Amino acid sequence: MKLFNKRIFLDYAATTPVDRRVFSAMKKYFRREFANPLSFYKEGITANIAIENARRTVAKIAGVRENEVIFTSSGTESDNLAISGVLAGIRKDSSNLFSSFKQIVPEVVTTVIEHPAILETCREIQNQGVAAVTFIPVLENGLIDTSKIQNVLNEKTVVVSVIMVNNEIGTIQSLRDVSREIKKFKNKIGRRHDEAPFLHTDASQAPCFLDINLDRLGVDMMTLDASKIYGPKGIGCLIKKSYVPMSSIQFGGNQEFGIRPATHNVPSIVGLAKALEIASDNKDKNFINVQNIQKYFIEKIEKEIPQAKINGSIKNRIPNNINICIEGLNSEFAVIQLDEMGVSCSAMTSCKSTSENAKSYVVEALGHGCGASSLRFTLGLCTKKREIKKVILKIKKVIELQKVGK
Amino acid sequence: MKLFNKRIFLDYAATTPVDRRVFSAMKKYFRREFANPLSFYKEGITANIAIENARRTVAKIAGVRENEVIFTSSGTESDNLAISGVLAGIRKDSSNLFSSFKQIVPEVVTTVIEHPAILETCREIQNQGVAAVTFIPVLENGLIDTSKIQNVLNEKTVVVSVIMVNNEIGTIQSLRDVSREIKKFKNKIGRRHDEAPFLHTDASQAPCFLDINLDRLGVDMMTLDASKIYGPKGIGCLIKKSYVPMSSIQFGGNQEFGIRPATHNVPSIVGLAKALEIASDNKDKNFINVQNIQKYFIEKIEKEIPQAKINGSIKNRIPNNINICIEGLNSEFAVIQLDEMGVSCSAMTSCKSTSENAKSYVVEALGHGCGASSLRFTLGLCTKKREIKKVILKIKKVIELQKVGK
Repeated sequence: MKLFNKRIFLDYAATTPVDRRVFSAMKKYFRREFANPLSFYKEGITANIAIENARRTVAKIAGVRENEVIFTSSGTESDNLAISGVLAGIRKDSSNLFSSFKQIVPEVVTTVIEHPAILETCREIQNQGVAAVTFIPVLENGLIDTSKIQNVLNEKTVVVSVIMVNNEIGTIQSLRDVSREIKKFKNKIGRRHDEAPFLHTDASQAPCFLDINLDRLGVDMMTLDASKIYGPKGIGCLIKKSYVPMSSIQFGGNQEFGIRPATHNVPSIVGLAKALEIASDNKDKNFINVQNIQKYFIEKIEKEIPQAKINGSIKNRIPNNINICIEGLNSEFAVIQLDEMGVSCSAMTSCKSTSENAKSYVVEALGHGCGASSLRFTLGLCTKKREIKKVILKIKKVIELQKVGK
Repeated sequence: MKLFNKRIFLDYAATTPVDRRVFSAMKKYFRREFANPLSFYKEGITANIAIENARRTVAKIAGVRENEVIFTSSGTESDNLAISGVLAGIRKDSSNLFSSFKQIVPEVVTTVIEHPAILETCREIQNQGVAAVTFIPVLENGLIDTSKIQNVLNEKTVVVSVIMVNNEIGTIQSLRDVSREIKKFKNKIGRRHDEAPFLHTDASQAPCFLDINLDRLGVDMMTLDASKIYGPKGIGCLIKKSYVPMSSIQFGGNQEFGIRPATHNVPSIVGLAKALEIASDNKDKNFINVQNIQKYFIEKIEKEIPQAKINGSIKNRIPNNINICIEGLNSEFAVIQLDEMGVSCSAMTSCKSTSENAKSYVVEALGHGCGASSLRFTLGLCTKKREIKKVILKIKKVIELQKVGK
């Protein structure tokens, strides 16, 4: 395993290793306290206490009630549920536009730089005619123009989904501003705060650095994924204020308030809560420490690779993301060359990386047309300056290599 | 933890602990080899090799090709995918009845004793008008009358889903017979073997005791769940012959041949394959050993609790299941009393146990009307005769307790 120790891993937005403390918290639930939390006997009750404690931890950090935390298998599932589950729920909910008039097509508003789990879900519901979707653009800095949000809202808008921290360029959207605009719209048409449109955010990349309190952000639903915050893979949650109508999109057991079936994944639920707790406790410290490395990285780039441009706002940016464009560079070639030199980074979200001739649609959305020549470096909580120093040299080497047509 | 060691756990159909060897196989993927398998760099490739090796293991045991194994988050998700994914797929597939004529409503056939993941999914698609569903009854012994299957098939039938081993009463359906009847029907109407109707089975309870080779069973799709075979929770797979059309029911990444998105749960995928390998290697030995305990249990019941009746066929039965009715017994009371006496068992599937005044719909389907007075004991691979001896005494005590109205 010396190979890995020598390497420089800079793709922590793709996924993180499990924190030692998280793994310790999970461990006993694999073999010893293994029962099904829905069982009535003592072992079941023990397992149930474990998941309810986890739920309490998540609820406290998000500032919601315990019955507003729905455990799922991933951020992707949570995103699917946030869109399709609300659309299904609003049809069944009594006394609204959509339950009374089946012919009225609900609307969804989202941005062009969402994670594929939101984008593809929105495209699918649009194709199926379940809802009409408006994809709002981003400015050159990767942020949406919140002053224009009211223009795309109307009485049929059910969900507005805006990613809190973009997974590719690290831009932090001001959810407070989005929320304020939605509230203004609701006031204008006489809707209560607990009526549609509801604001959802995919906050998967946020918790290690930012506050995720739903009320402070002004959001009604939030997606989290343990595998991006030093927790286990295969577990996420959708946090959903109780007034948001929702129906399950998978069917089976009565788990998770009837919204999400299947035997509870006890060790991973415990792991998600522990990872979120560690993230929340350390977020301010993490922000300062990692931003320090990020600043160093950006300064080095500006000085040593002047042809590189930073994609997305530097000001409104998560500290662990550096995304650069180098005109004429082939991203895929660069990722492979850097890998050969011992550096792990990426060109785009790994969820879409298997597509042929893939470009980063997020970088493309910024309007510079360099989605095929961008590189994403995402720092870990333990990334060191000396690693960055080496990486800069290696990027320069790759640029050199491509010039000589190798 | 002495409490648990002294107790007698007889609810292994609800969920199993993770086998020590399975946990060992999973361990290094939590912290050390943690990368996203879709990443192009070395760590990603290592993770990808791990999931592809796991896929190969599962494929070999099921007798299918590697691209016919789709990892999911559970048996429940696999069941949902088997029904809804095929219905979505057949609409998109070119040159069939349903893609040409959108007004034709496809049909699904299933049994009244399926797991809730199939039953609820079928009820939902029926309510939504996506498909018409025929629920076929079972005989008094818990088996379906395969000679009548052809009566419910027609040109619009897309999926037939029959549970391989019932999770409550342990009855083993003859999938070969079901498959033969479907083949006869296909011949009659001139359909090829790779055309609808497709046979799906939920085999979650089977692998520790039975062969799950798809061709030998004659099935086109199979659901597996690691948490029932001494593997981790939160992971399952749907095995699907390549000729079965399928569209994803969740949207996001390109993982799993585009059928199932989200970051791969590498440790759990490795764990599922290891658990299945151990199950497959030991199934014949397990069958003999556990059936020996089952026989002892049944003999003891017949001798010492003559008022008890065994629910479901004894002959066509998984070795680890004993399900009894005791007239006048209140299942819930009995489960709680046995728990107090140190025995863990259940009254019905835990997926539905949170419903009020719940009866076992599986036992009810047998037609004796004793769904509220049945008890399920499911043996582990290490359950001992001396434990059964104690349990029999405790059941007798519970019967005595209820008589005196305590």
